[in-house]
Amino acid sequence: MKPSLFSTRLTAALKRSPICVGLDTDPSLLPAGFRGPNAVLDFNKAIVDATIDLAGAYKPNFAFYEALGAAGWTCLTATVDYIHTKSKAVLTIADAKRGDIGNTAKMYADAILTQMDFDAVTVNPWMGSDGVAPFLENPNKGAFLLCLTSNPGSLDFQFHGSQNEPLFLRVARQASRWNQHENCGLVVGATKPGHMAVIRDAVPSMPFLVPGIGAQGGDLESAVRINTGDHGIQAFINVSRSVLYASNGPDFAEAARRAVSDLKQAIDQIQKTAG
Amino acid sequence: MKPSLFSTRLTAALKRSPICVGLDTDPSLLPAGFRGPNAVLDFNKAIVDATIDLAGAYKPNFAFYEALGAAGWTCLTATVDYIHTKSKAVLTIADAKRGDIGNTAKMYADAILTQMDFDAVTVNPWMGSDGVAPFLENPNKGAFLLCLTSNPGSLDFQFHGSQNEPLFLRVARQASRWNQHENCGLVVGATKPGHMAVIRDAVPSMPFLVPGIGAQGGDLESAVRINTGDHGIQAFINVSRSVLYASNGPDFAEAARRAVSDLKQAIDQIQKTAG
Repeated sequence: MKPSLFSTRLTAALKRSPICVGLDTDPSLLPAGFRGPNAVLDFNKAIVDATIDLAGAYKPNFAFYEALGAAGWTCLTATVDYIHTKSKAVLTIADAKRGDIGNTAKMYADAILTQMDFDAVTVNPWMGSDGVAPFLENPNKGAFLLCLTSNPGSLDFQFHGSQNEPLFLRVARQASRWNQHENCGLVVGATKPGHMAVIRDAVPSMPFLVPGIGAQGGDLESAVRINTGDHGIQAFINVSRSVLYASNGPDFAEAARRAVSDLKQAIDQIQKTAG
Repeated sequence: MKPSLFSTRLTAALKRSPICVGLDTDPSLLPAGFRGPNAVLDFNKAIVDATIDLAGAYKPNFAFYEALGAAGWTCLTATVDYIHTKSKAVLTIADAKRGDIGNTAKMYADAILTQMDFDAVTVNPWMGSDGVAPFLENPNKGAFLLCLTSNPGSLDFQFHGSQNEPLFLRVARQASRWNQHENCGLVVGATKPGHMAVIRDAVPSMPFLVPGIGAQGGDLESAVRINTGDHGIQAFINVSRSVLYASNGPDFAEAARRAVSDLKQAIDQIQKTAG
């Protein structure tokens, strides 16, 4: 089977659902019954089973797996395999925020996109073109470059430069030039809707990956409105903690499903009034 | 045994040797005889054995281990353990270039500095204060923030801003404010000596980690002169490929030792004429 282009798969996945479920799975927060070496994998599977028909993408956060050592790496691989087995329609996004000089970036891209077979990866663009290129060279895979993040520290460097071209805007413009295979997106936090709108104007057709809804207090309504155009929504809205830990009782899976379902309805509603 | 402060250990390690050996170990480039699941670890041990009395630090490049999957993670842990067993005086620097929002950065710091017990880590400062803080909060561990890298793509974003304050200089100044425990250093590539001198002027006492000598064509003489002051050299000069692959015959270990020894003599010589 020839794999289809990333841009085609992304469009289909966004149509299915603009919700990206972040698998920031913390062993210390799992419900009773999830203990021992397979706890994280078993929990991930239960979350995937409960939400997969409502999700467009899953995004494991590498830090949470690296904190488990070699076993965490195995769990990460098993998680992405499980998602692919359950559905070819949802995307798997490696939240790894890698970025290094060309020959090293190539190794990261090989590890994440080829060997682990993630569909896409988050990339830190700091090192520039040769650091980003290896993540974009396969048109069947994609990369979301950090543009404007959702955290307080984003003010430290991402706004550097003139008001006409703060750094985050330069990254967006440069990314659109690197986007030859239409497989490049941007990470744009929901905590700064005004700046998100500016970025959206600069790169009307690039997909965004939007963190910051939920625990970080981002603005869902603005994020959906800004990213909804003639072809529907051009952004994945990420949710992690509010889904994974919606309940830590035996009803955790139903609670996770309800959290995703409620969010999907809220997004649909905003889109209707935006359309 | 109470672990000593990172700054104390760093000063002692630099006095021992300003050479950092980068363990960018590529299984496809190893001498005959290094095959099978332990090839990379066995090769790393042989390189460490051959060079440890001449080195101040070792710096495994995470990408090369992640490309080996879970087994690579085990190899990385075994490599850092081996170095610590051989000598308490050399530093181990995780070349991981991590960086994420606060709660995630904390997980990376825990994985690398606590669990794997690296002495220091390279950090991508793009996400700002809350992304950097977890790597600096333990005064017994250190972090080198990417400031001005050695690769061609460094021109894309690291010079953004005004001539008075290009981004790399803002990072350097900000890093010196974050350096409360004197455990923060900067990565400054040897390929741009003029800019390295500007950064050195801005942060006279911060340690640098200097990649780009060797395969990337950086300027050793300038790097040593710029970083040599009243208290000796304040920088680790990193070498990777020119040491690891100095020979791929049975004499690879002696050739690696000779490469490090020659470089150390060259640095000593430059320091003498600089002093």
